[in-house]
Amino acid sequence: MATVEWDEGAGGVRLIDQTRLPDQESYVVCRTAAEVAAAIRDMVVRGAPAIGAAAAYGVALAARAGDLAGGAELIRAARPTARDLFWAVELVERAPDPLAEAHRIARESVEACQAIGRHGAALLPRGARVVTICNTGALATVDYGTALGVIRAAHEAGGEPTVYAMETRPRAQGARLTVWELRRLGIPHRLIADGAAGLLLQRGMVDVAISGADRVCANGDVVNKVGTYSLALLCREHGVPFYVAAPESTVDRATAEGAAVVIEERDPGEVTTFAPSGTAAWNPAFDVTPAALVSALITENGVLRHD
Amino acid sequence: MATVEWDEGAGGVRLIDQTRLPDQESYVVCRTAAEVAAAIRDMVVRGAPAIGAAAAYGVALAARAGDLAGGAELIRAARPTARDLFWAVELVERAPDPLAEAHRIARESVEACQAIGRHGAALLPRGARVVTICNTGALATVDYGTALGVIRAAHEAGGEPTVYAMETRPRAQGARLTVWELRRLGIPHRLIADGAAGLLLQRGMVDVAISGADRVCANGDVVNKVGTYSLALLCREHGVPFYVAAPESTVDRATAEGAAVVIEERDPGEVTTFAPSGTAAWNPAFDVTPAALVSALITENGVLRHD
Repeated sequence: MATVEWDEGAGGVRLIDQTRLPDQESYVVCRTAAEVAAAIRDMVVRGAPAIGAAAAYGVALAARAGDLAGGAELIRAARPTARDLFWAVELVERAPDPLAEAHRIARESVEACQAIGRHGAALLPRGARVVTICNTGALATVDYGTALGVIRAAHEAGGEPTVYAMETRPRAQGARLTVWELRRLGIPHRLIADGAAGLLLQRGMVDVAISGADRVCANGDVVNKVGTYSLALLCREHGVPFYVAAPESTVDRATAEGAAVVIEERDPGEVTTFAPSGTAAWNPAFDVTPAALVSALITENGVLRHD
Repeated sequence: MATVEWDEGAGGVRLIDQTRLPDQESYVVCRTAAEVAAAIRDMVVRGAPAIGAAAAYGVALAARAGDLAGGAELIRAARPTARDLFWAVELVERAPDPLAEAHRIARESVEACQAIGRHGAALLPRGARVVTICNTGALATVDYGTALGVIRAAHEAGGEPTVYAMETRPRAQGARLTVWELRRLGIPHRLIADGAAGLLLQRGMVDVAISGADRVCANGDVVNKVGTYSLALLCREHGVPFYVAAPESTVDRATAEGAAVVIEERDPGEVTTFAPSGTAAWNPAFDVTPAALVSALITENGVLRHD
């Protein structure tokens, strides 16, 4: 399985369609920047590092088509919050060989995840019971994963981690994607409703929480999937470390703090699954976890602790 | 609409079938204690005060059938956490006229909710923006509601409250039932994913949180729908009052603290809605909000503040 992969024969970037998982493993090929932008917007591809790599290929496709600036603009407008998107677009825009630069971004993204895994796994006790939110695995990246990459590295090193996966409404990436990945990896896991994280922490059922990030601000604030902040607050209350695993591409030194980040609000229809038709809903996709609640940030360069 | 109503002609207690709402408004009549126990277990009727009234009628049906003790035992075994169930069973068991006692419990339960509404509405500022979890309205009681009764009383008094209703996975009582009730009452509302409560509080979008309770312990700990504890923690962090509205029948002075209460764990299948088939899940139905996080308990007798 490759989440984001260049397909020269097909003339585009091939994405696993994450809106159809876990029921169906299917792929789409995007041959234009507009198609890549739509795939990002509709969450065919999601997860900050995966969005970054897809965006890179989208700009490379625009360059091939002779409209680099127009394509870059389309991609930038696809989703506002994940840092990696803007980072990747800018790199490819500036590169002498856009496609080669996109390849480099995709390749180094996998290497970054593997390094995050190694650094993070060293933080986990043997038999660690880990709670995670959203999906931060191979599907959220080009391959391997960030927070789930840490768990995977611990598993591959014989550390025998077990996972509580938060469902992560409204799009249920925890239930749909994380569970699917954990099963393929053979890592023991149980799914919980998002609201059950409180009792999980209350009962001392986890040793550590690890999340990914969509954007890490200069002051260390972490913008991530909505619900992350509540989890971090529970961790502080119960003395459980709350780690954030993300590549340097997610770190935005130009944005001072979380309050300055645009939080995407998505279609209310994502929330009204069980409600009477026509129900009004508020559907922010992210929230801000203040730096003070983050025990450490795990990047490919090592472990940064908050002072 | 009556959530729990005796139907002499039909020879039993009539319940609105809450598993079919909001798509279908249908009713079931339970003619034996076993049928009432099944309706409680399967959540045809749910909400602590509604369970209490249904349980009372169930024991009255058992008395009519000449097996009071057997019927009471069936009802007691239906669900472990809500205090009102055990309270009502004991009252009807001891009463000289079980059916008259069940009628009294049902009638006084409505009066208690109306008094809770009056006491609670006085705590809300004009135009209060309120966040609620689960369903605590007419459907959770014989009529009127507890936390939703407070909002309703404020609305009826012209206080113009607006509501953010938490979806409340896994059974989505907020999306399915609270939204349905708020729409009938004409109270403005928006639905949110459970994880969005963090950003809601972070952004100062609510003035007050109100929840119901399934059991209030002697020390003031509140056992309520799973996810309540996280909401209460968010409220403390952001200086937003967290009120609990419940009748005296929910207060269990014989249980010292929340940690002593049996937390029901339900079918994992309730959680795996979006997950691959065969996914393992942990599905606790309740959690414990420590008394220190409760700004005040609103009962029919008034407002009790934690010292």
